[in-house]
Amino acid sequence: MYKLVLIRHGESTWNLENRFTGWTDVDLTPTGVEQAKQAGRLLKAEGYDFDVAYTSVLKRATRTLWHVLDELDRTWLPVVHSWRLNERHYGGLQGLNKAEMAKEYGEEQVLVWRRSYTTPPPALEPSDPRCERSDPRYAKLSPEQVPLTECLKDTVARVMPFWNESMAPAIRAGRRLVVAAHGNSIRALVKYLDNISDSDIVGVNIPNGIPLVYELDDDLKPLRHYYLGDAEAVAAAAAAVASQGKKA
Amino acid sequence: MYKLVLIRHGESTWNLENRFTGWTDVDLTPTGVEQAKQAGRLLKAEGYDFDVAYTSVLKRATRTLWHVLDELDRTWLPVVHSWRLNERHYGGLQGLNKAEMAKEYGEEQVLVWRRSYTTPPPALEPSDPRCERSDPRYAKLSPEQVPLTECLKDTVARVMPFWNESMAPAIRAGRRLVVAAHGNSIRALVKYLDNISDSDIVGVNIPNGIPLVYELDDDLKPLRHYYLGDAEAVAAAAAAVASQGKKA
Repeated sequence: MYKLVLIRHGESTWNLENRFTGWTDVDLTPTGVEQAKQAGRLLKAEGYDFDVAYTSVLKRATRTLWHVLDELDRTWLPVVHSWRLNERHYGGLQGLNKAEMAKEYGEEQVLVWRRSYTTPPPALEPSDPRCERSDPRYAKLSPEQVPLTECLKDTVARVMPFWNESMAPAIRAGRRLVVAAHGNSIRALVKYLDNISDSDIVGVNIPNGIPLVYELDDDLKPLRHYYLGDAEAVAAAAAAVASQGKKA
Repeated sequence: MYKLVLIRHGESTWNLENRFTGWTDVDLTPTGVEQAKQAGRLLKAEGYDFDVAYTSVLKRATRTLWHVLDELDRTWLPVVHSWRLNERHYGGLQGLNKAEMAKEYGEEQVLVWRRSYTTPPPALEPSDPRCERSDPRYAKLSPEQVPLTECLKDTVARVMPFWNESMAPAIRAGRRLVVAAHGNSIRALVKYLDNISDSDIVGVNIPNGIPLVYELDDDLKPLRHYYLGDAEAVAAAAAAVASQGKKA
């Protein structure tokens, strides 16, 4: 039986400001740092240990990982960064306030942008200063690989090759993986692992900074999954994520 | 022309307590954290950028690197950890106070242990709780690869394969390396690069947290080297390292 641990980064400055973040490289808040440390302490208290860590190229996930590794006294673990674990690209909405967008376009439209499986937000113009195509961390990608917007289906499409070619082989080789990533890259993995339908995945919310454990059989099919820590805290954190698109 | 940047970790808790550290995995002091950040700010101000980072499996070097990457906004860079970049193993002296050892055995004996090229300190017993052979970070090494003590010659012998097989090929491939390591693993590299004699290397002191830049030709022969930052600060930092074995 294999175990895989997924952790959504702690609260970021734009989670706090209720802004669409996507590929914008914002940092953790002090609360987010504390969530990340708490995730590490929880893993340590429960006796978890790892052989390799995976994260995105965005600092809110990397810093979450660093705090987790620090608490586990595993700062020496190899870390694999991949843009394929980045948050869903939020296109022209990146930087804009979720509640203000709800006032302007209606909660329903914002919910479509946030949660529709196949409808992406309006695309960024390549000339938009927010466009990441000139960012050195994506220099080895073709311009077309750097999205101008993404729906969750697009995110799934670029996460899965990384799962298939890097993460799954590592798990099969017996390596214990801890993954610090993002709400939507984790949803992409969860959708695949639990075979969740396109319509049902929109109702799945990944709380910040709470380790999500998958127990997998020899074929990497999930036997069960669960969050570590206090059940009420987990539920409250998931509900907080779900309510970010409200006007109030 | 290639550039290689070497940084000795910032002040550690045992630097501050004047204890022999070696492979003991102590953390940075607040001063050490500030030195690491300052190294990153200096590199940024001077326009340095990197493609890959190298460090040891000891947290004082890793944390130094993390702060440097943070200041450079390069938290997404690939990081290669290797035990071969660890500090020289200090054997049975690990944990003991340098000044107390000087009182007990004389400054001369301590200087031999600290600075002789070929005389290692007394070896740890494999049964000593300080012995690192059961540490999971060295699990893939044969027990004989995990030293019980080292003289600088031994350190050079285990650093050089890593230089030849990993670092030098990466530099030749055009990758810009930043290396956060330790006084003696950096001395090993400096000895090789500048072809310093066994007797002269004992007089070379690497200050904490100050970027040391090597400019290398196509054959990776040094054209020149220099520390970044204020010359007086560099000299004072190197002198502080040199005086650690004194009784006073």
